[in-house]
Amino acid sequence: MGKVISSASTSLDGFVAGPDDEVGPLFDWYEAGDRPWTSAGGDMTFHLTQADHDYWSGWVARLGALVVGRHLFDITDGWKGTHPLGVPVVVLTHSPPEGWGYPGGTVEFVTGGIHDAVARAKQVAGDADVGVAAGEIASQCLVAGLLDEVSVDLVPCFLGVGRPYFTAVAGQVVLGDPTTVVEGERLTHLVYPVQPG
Amino acid sequence: MGKVISSASTSLDGFVAGPDDEVGPLFDWYEAGDRPWTSAGGDMTFHLTQADHDYWSGWVARLGALVVGRHLFDITDGWKGTHPLGVPVVVLTHSPPEGWGYPGGTVEFVTGGIHDAVARAKQVAGDADVGVAAGEIASQCLVAGLLDEVSVDLVPCFLGVGRPYFTAVAGQVVLGDPTTVVEGERLTHLVYPVQPG
Repeated sequence: MGKVISSASTSLDGFVAGPDDEVGPLFDWYEAGDRPWTSAGGDMTFHLTQADHDYWSGWVARLGALVVGRHLFDITDGWKGTHPLGVPVVVLTHSPPEGWGYPGGTVEFVTGGIHDAVARAKQVAGDADVGVAAGEIASQCLVAGLLDEVSVDLVPCFLGVGRPYFTAVAGQVVLGDPTTVVEGERLTHLVYPVQPG
Repeated sequence: MGKVISSASTSLDGFVAGPDDEVGPLFDWYEAGDRPWTSAGGDMTFHLTQADHDYWSGWVARLGALVVGRHLFDITDGWKGTHPLGVPVVVLTHSPPEGWGYPGGTVEFVTGGIHDAVARAKQVAGDADVGVAAGEIASQCLVAGLLDEVSVDLVPCFLGVGRPYFTAVAGQVVLGDPTTVVEGERLTHLVYPVQPG
């Protein structure tokens, strides 16, 4: 069975976006090289360095499903049914949007809570990993003991204010030492195991 | 001439201490190995891994002076005149404490502002580097264009609340890619160049 992994481009002060969801320098690495990487829908192409392309392709290849929250779904319009990473998406929400949908889309809704959402994503992913969005969903997974790894794509910037990687986690979170350290261009890829408390 | 470098053990959410100056897991690496490192005064010994000992010894060897703020001076009682790293300390303060001093101490006070404090520290350090404390002093140096490098000893934890690495810096701070990445035990040593704005 795959792992459950949170992942986000993150500033040195731990923000995954600005207060109004602006990404500022957090996504500069998407255009920091000359190796193209094209999204599943074909409508978005990054240009990465070789090291970043290798890392990113490996991450995507191991991914079997994603769990996201309603906020991310809303600001992306559910990626019009097809996530850029080409994997099914489980949206955790109290009230699924009525009549929303796109032909061939692989976005579904779960209302039962974080355990149900992750269970469904694991079912869809099979032996592959489940990615969970940083922020509210990653926090709920962490608190519920569902999170195996915390992936931090560390961007050399401080934002000062913004949306934290973990929200609503009471007290400190201590992780294991990184199992992966890859130096990219405009970021450092770090993967931390969540150790049992 | 040496560089001016800020340095601190830092959480993944960018805090260098908790709200009441407690360090929590930030200093766990001081006792994560079996190679002893003893402070200048001889009254404090860390036990580091070989990698951390090499990194730490190199940092200390290049250091010629430190600039700290009044808060750090107060909570340490000025290290009783002898900083653990064995280098002279310049304290930036509006009003130096009257009658404070220890025999053989190498702590002095500068009241003229951050430019004067760094100039004095550079004079004392000669060709060696000047270390500046994270927080208010590092922020003042950054804003004044006096900072060459930002050293982040990145500890695998989130604190949620605490004292930020940079305080009172308006807007975002974008650094260069790390020139140093060293994997230690209970932290990753990262050094970022400050690029001209």
